[in-house]
Amino acid sequence: MNTPLGITQLEQFDAQDSLVAKRDAFVLPPNTIYLDGNSLGAMPKVAATRAQDVLATQWSQDLIKSWNSHSWIDLPGTVGEKIARLIGAAPGQVISCDSTSVNLFKVLSSAMLLQQGRKIVVSQAGNFPTDLYMVEGLSSLLGQQNCQLQLVDNNELESALTEHVAVLMLTQVDFRSGRLLDMQRLTQLAHEKGILVIWDLAHSAGALPIELDACNVDFAVGCGYKYLNGGPGAPAFLYVAKRHQADVVQPLSGWMGHKTPFSFDNKYDKAPGIEQYLTGTPAILSMSVLDAALDVFSDVDMSTLRQKSLALSDSFHKLVKQHDALAELTLLTPLSAAERGSQLAYQHPKAYALCQALIKRGVIADFRAPDILRLGFTPLYLRFRDIWHAVEILADIVQSGEYLKAEYAVKHKVT
Amino acid sequence: MNTPLGITQLEQFDAQDSLVAKRDAFVLPPNTIYLDGNSLGAMPKVAATRAQDVLATQWSQDLIKSWNSHSWIDLPGTVGEKIARLIGAAPGQVISCDSTSVNLFKVLSSAMLLQQGRKIVVSQAGNFPTDLYMVEGLSSLLGQQNCQLQLVDNNELESALTEHVAVLMLTQVDFRSGRLLDMQRLTQLAHEKGILVIWDLAHSAGALPIELDACNVDFAVGCGYKYLNGGPGAPAFLYVAKRHQADVVQPLSGWMGHKTPFSFDNKYDKAPGIEQYLTGTPAILSMSVLDAALDVFSDVDMSTLRQKSLALSDSFHKLVKQHDALAELTLLTPLSAAERGSQLAYQHPKAYALCQALIKRGVIADFRAPDILRLGFTPLYLRFRDIWHAVEILADIVQSGEYLKAEYAVKHKVT
Repeated sequence: MNTPLGITQLEQFDAQDSLVAKRDAFVLPPNTIYLDGNSLGAMPKVAATRAQDVLATQWSQDLIKSWNSHSWIDLPGTVGEKIARLIGAAPGQVISCDSTSVNLFKVLSSAMLLQQGRKIVVSQAGNFPTDLYMVEGLSSLLGQQNCQLQLVDNNELESALTEHVAVLMLTQVDFRSGRLLDMQRLTQLAHEKGILVIWDLAHSAGALPIELDACNVDFAVGCGYKYLNGGPGAPAFLYVAKRHQADVVQPLSGWMGHKTPFSFDNKYDKAPGIEQYLTGTPAILSMSVLDAALDVFSDVDMSTLRQKSLALSDSFHKLVKQHDALAELTLLTPLSAAERGSQLAYQHPKAYALCQALIKRGVIADFRAPDILRLGFTPLYLRFRDIWHAVEILADIVQSGEYLKAEYAVKHKVT
Repeated sequence: MNTPLGITQLEQFDAQDSLVAKRDAFVLPPNTIYLDGNSLGAMPKVAATRAQDVLATQWSQDLIKSWNSHSWIDLPGTVGEKIARLIGAAPGQVISCDSTSVNLFKVLSSAMLLQQGRKIVVSQAGNFPTDLYMVEGLSSLLGQQNCQLQLVDNNELESALTEHVAVLMLTQVDFRSGRLLDMQRLTQLAHEKGILVIWDLAHSAGALPIELDACNVDFAVGCGYKYLNGGPGAPAFLYVAKRHQADVVQPLSGWMGHKTPFSFDNKYDKAPGIEQYLTGTPAILSMSVLDAALDVFSDVDMSTLRQKSLALSDSFHKLVKQHDALAELTLLTPLSAAERGSQLAYQHPKAYALCQALIKRGVIADFRAPDILRLGFTPLYLRFRDIWHAVEILADIVQSGEYLKAEYAVKHKVT
């Protein structure tokens, strides 16, 4: 399509958008275009209602009885099954607990213990740091002779998959570039060499259709507070394929993962199913909010969501290309839909200042060191007209030189 | 004192109680005597107010900016320092994160890695199961030849401390019996044999004065949702003595424990201080509530709290002894103040049914398998007159045979 994109057309997209009403399910700040749902999802109204109920009734009034009467004890499984539906997992394979990092340690340990005799963990250079650090952490216990990280570039991924490799650990959508990997193909290639595969779904769960079972994935972990809108630092989740559940060992064997937690045995006897991956007592307030937030997805078709996500980022990029002032923005994200997540990443020498100036104008983007402006597109609460205004503001900031002001030059603590 | 204890005297105790006003800081259910604060602390009013602020302002309105503007990024340290004051730790040694179980895995790993060449972890038989299971979990990675659990009875503890032992891992107050161990003496005896010591403070932090620094403790972990009133499944905490912080390695090396988390380096470079024990993103909502809840302690003198705690449990037991109907209750908790935590545990052949009948009458106690009735005394919100009524109800239940009703015979899921 060579005709320039205009506001009228974007308003038309909104009029045709079957997800448009979902925006009402969220509390959003006024005069803000929020392009950072890939870092912290916006607050669903039901989440606030649930939190209120946990405080006013469950904790304060029913106190300890709530473990039964409000099913706190079942929450990790309840939340897990709601997420399972979004990531193509049949029941009994997903559970919510701990942080993504801690969960990664659990499944990584399980995978390495299954792969005795192989020591290499292959991952992408530039993968989210915690994923790589967890391999280092596991090495400190297993020894470098039993657990060793090998980092490769994306174009070397397939050739790195040899019989020496124990585990392939990948993030489906790269946190920086937004590149989407081919889960089906990479999992299959790894399996052909006897390699177990762990997928980190932090930037894909809730953003696009995922088919863990169909792709024959071994293990996965993911985040509750990005596209799943579970609130800041919401509990994470993990997936372990049914076929592995009898054989795996996971070292964070806490009392909640015991077959009969309330028998208080001295000896650990793991639960037979996915519950064996529970460790300590879950943060009930945060997990309840995540549980409620997931209900926003209950009537959402993930293909429809994906179509809107791609259309939002397509529109954004087309609008960027229409502004000469934005020529200095270099797109890092692949434009092909098969290789693109739900975000766009642009390199720009003054990306940090640009990001700060945008935030000042109510367009919440984020910055990733050293020079990346990152924009997340969350189809549940973003409108096409928001995209138009965001790019208009961006162009204005660049054209006017506003972003060159001294106040935007200093790095803040958290980006 | 041989004169029987009466309600008048208990009301007098209330009149003289300098902590009596603290009860107003909590939301408590009507017609309830809550003797289970050692399982789940009651809700402080400030906790609910803070949760509301996190939802209505921080998350929903300020969104990602809250990491700086509402100091989310500092929360683990802020909370840690508030707890430090309660457990006798100078600044820079306590941090809040994850669950007690996960934190135990971190410090246990650190201790074992420091103690290369020694493989034995000594603990109490009957210690809280998660503590023991975590040693098993670590063994699955280090191998039985490098990490092995040795369980001893309380009276064998001291003789078990030999040069072959790597780590002594104890819970200061036993979750079942309520027995309080001598932290100073056991830590010193262990150190004399080159053993590192880990204390689990789950049933002591917030319940009695603790002096980690003065006792020269190496590592400690503890729970946020019992006597600290942080809400169900609130984040836990850990302590690592300053003298170990440069040398330790902890395997759950997530991005939050990195020296510069936002540089997103491929290589893990641990933070120099206690922050190295952070792993993933903290559950901000749950941790904020804990942060607010700790403010209830800001003007509390821990010796005063301890005196009231002992007086509450003394009164309870005296009243029990005054009732012939309660002769079948056998006290498991040592009566000596030096050996008693903030709870009483009674053995009774029908302890489960007794507990259920009590709950039905508004006295919330709890049951621990196979035959223990457990009563927790939280000086911040319990009155002496509550103790009187609780024992009256208990005696009435036994005398009337009410607890023998069929409805109390079936075990519920969570106790």
